[in-house]
Amino acid sequence: MPEVNFFKLVEEELALVESGLADNLDSSINIMNQASVHLIKAGGKRLRPAFALLAARFYGEELAEIIPAAVALELIHMATLVHDDVIDNSSIRRGTETVKSGWGNRVSIYAGNYVFARSLSIISTYQRSDLIDVLARASMKICEGEIIQMLSCYNVNLGLKNYLRRIERKTALLISVSCELGAMIRHAPLQEIIALRNYGYYLGMGFQITDDILDIIADEETLGKPTGSDIRQGVITLPALYALRHDPNGQELAQLLSSPEACINKAERIIEIISDSDGIDYAYYATQHFALKAQKQLDVLPDLPVKKNLYDIANFIIAREY
Amino acid sequence: MPEVNFFKLVEEELALVESGLADNLDSSINIMNQASVHLIKAGGKRLRPAFALLAARFYGEELAEIIPAAVALELIHMATLVHDDVIDNSSIRRGTETVKSGWGNRVSIYAGNYVFARSLSIISTYQRSDLIDVLARASMKICEGEIIQMLSCYNVNLGLKNYLRRIERKTALLISVSCELGAMIRHAPLQEIIALRNYGYYLGMGFQITDDILDIIADEETLGKPTGSDIRQGVITLPALYALRHDPNGQELAQLLSSPEACINKAERIIEIISDSDGIDYAYYATQHFALKAQKQLDVLPDLPVKKNLYDIANFIIAREY
Repeated sequence: MPEVNFFKLVEEELALVESGLADNLDSSINIMNQASVHLIKAGGKRLRPAFALLAARFYGEELAEIIPAAVALELIHMATLVHDDVIDNSSIRRGTETVKSGWGNRVSIYAGNYVFARSLSIISTYQRSDLIDVLARASMKICEGEIIQMLSCYNVNLGLKNYLRRIERKTALLISVSCELGAMIRHAPLQEIIALRNYGYYLGMGFQITDDILDIIADEETLGKPTGSDIRQGVITLPALYALRHDPNGQELAQLLSSPEACINKAERIIEIISDSDGIDYAYYATQHFALKAQKQLDVLPDLPVKKNLYDIANFIIAREY
Repeated sequence: MPEVNFFKLVEEELALVESGLADNLDSSINIMNQASVHLIKAGGKRLRPAFALLAARFYGEELAEIIPAAVALELIHMATLVHDDVIDNSSIRRGTETVKSGWGNRVSIYAGNYVFARSLSIISTYQRSDLIDVLARASMKICEGEIIQMLSCYNVNLGLKNYLRRIERKTALLISVSCELGAMIRHAPLQEIIALRNYGYYLGMGFQITDDILDIIADEETLGKPTGSDIRQGVITLPALYALRHDPNGQELAQLLSSPEACINKAERIIEIISDSDGIDYAYYATQHFALKAQKQLDVLPDLPVKKNLYDIANFIIAREY
């Protein structure tokens, strides 16, 4: 999402995360190695490591202790991406061939499992079961979210609540956990741990809605995947939800979005209806709403440069600078 | 495998494990619930919980403390079964429709992930990161094993070492970890933890080779799945391995087992060659070898009734009473 570098404060640490990822995806099995290196090359924004590091930054400048957790969080994110690729039948993610299309469904499932187990093994080195507990609970909810999303496809009758639950589990939870773990590892006061957890949650909600907007209005080059990929899979996001209820073409849209065939063959028309509706603007307001809530959480945190940093990240959403 | 009740000593606790499984597979999402209940109904021998309980039995009769770990171990086993079902395209396991054939690949992947995360969440309640560490490491190796198995299909040139590595990761590791965790939770002396871990390992090797024998010689009713299901998937097990090297029909067998089509269409002929070879006997000797090694591990353990119990389980394999 953000192209601006919001992670200057933790830039050196993020470089260490990158080499940590490479080290940790080294497996004794060659094909697993190939699949894993592939994952690293695919890049990504390393948002989760960045937020863990930034949260920890409130409690000292020495962040070496956070690197393993930051690596583990990115590994968990990667594991979910690998499994999503199996399920979505997507062949392109971030412009690179996915693990699935390169090595088949089987390797993808086990590679995802392996990467998840690896991340736990890393977290267990902290010898703190409270960290594992937070991760395990979030993982369960994320799995539930995937199932909700699956069951919600092509269903034009589901409302805002269903959508929010889906994006919470798809994105907000792991960003929330990233902030939470960063603070927990540094033994932050409980009130501040909660504030950072909530900051991550609301910001994550804002990020996902932004992604959902971009999936409709941005071009393939910007996205690193085809425009409207959600629509093609029958995933109904906020702009579509609004258009379904309030646009004069709502009925046509409902017919199209209920049909798996139309979602693929008439994706362009669907994108057109949604883009021309007020759904995009409505979704923008929603991102601003969540970004403001995220900023509000920062009130209880110490006045340090990193606070301004987190505030600015939310501002970036509010100002629609992306 | 064993039809005799070897788990009398921990019978009451196993009943608690059963209700623990039911409680822990309750999710807020209905379809996940259905899939999970399905898993419990499919039954299974609850070997892993039983071994965790038996190992703990060396260190006192009060086993309430072990129940959560026993439940978690069975959940991990279930999670691997669900993912195997996706991959094997099997539609029947233990005579019941698999999660996959009932609800599709997608739910299976996420249900497996959910169940795994749940088991971690349970283990984290012990507030002992050493337990998580043992589980996470074993999980990584199990994933690697699945990949090795996948890559080894239809390959008649691989030898004993490859086979042993596959069954270690498929079965022996989790039974080994079950014994190990049972002892660890009770703070057993290190030497005894290692002995119990090794006992579980060797016994697990013996169990899997026995399963591999039965897959060829037992009928569908006994197995709860079609005879020769390994062969149909191109999985080359010990009896086949022996026949490939030493039977006069070895060359014909090699040709058949190298061809995915023949493995399905000529499964009966393949089963016939292997059954008539000395491969079955050779595999029996291997089970005895491992069962004896398992018994040897018990030497350092306290002389309690449970020791005789574990000894007898290994004897059951040695005496070929199944």
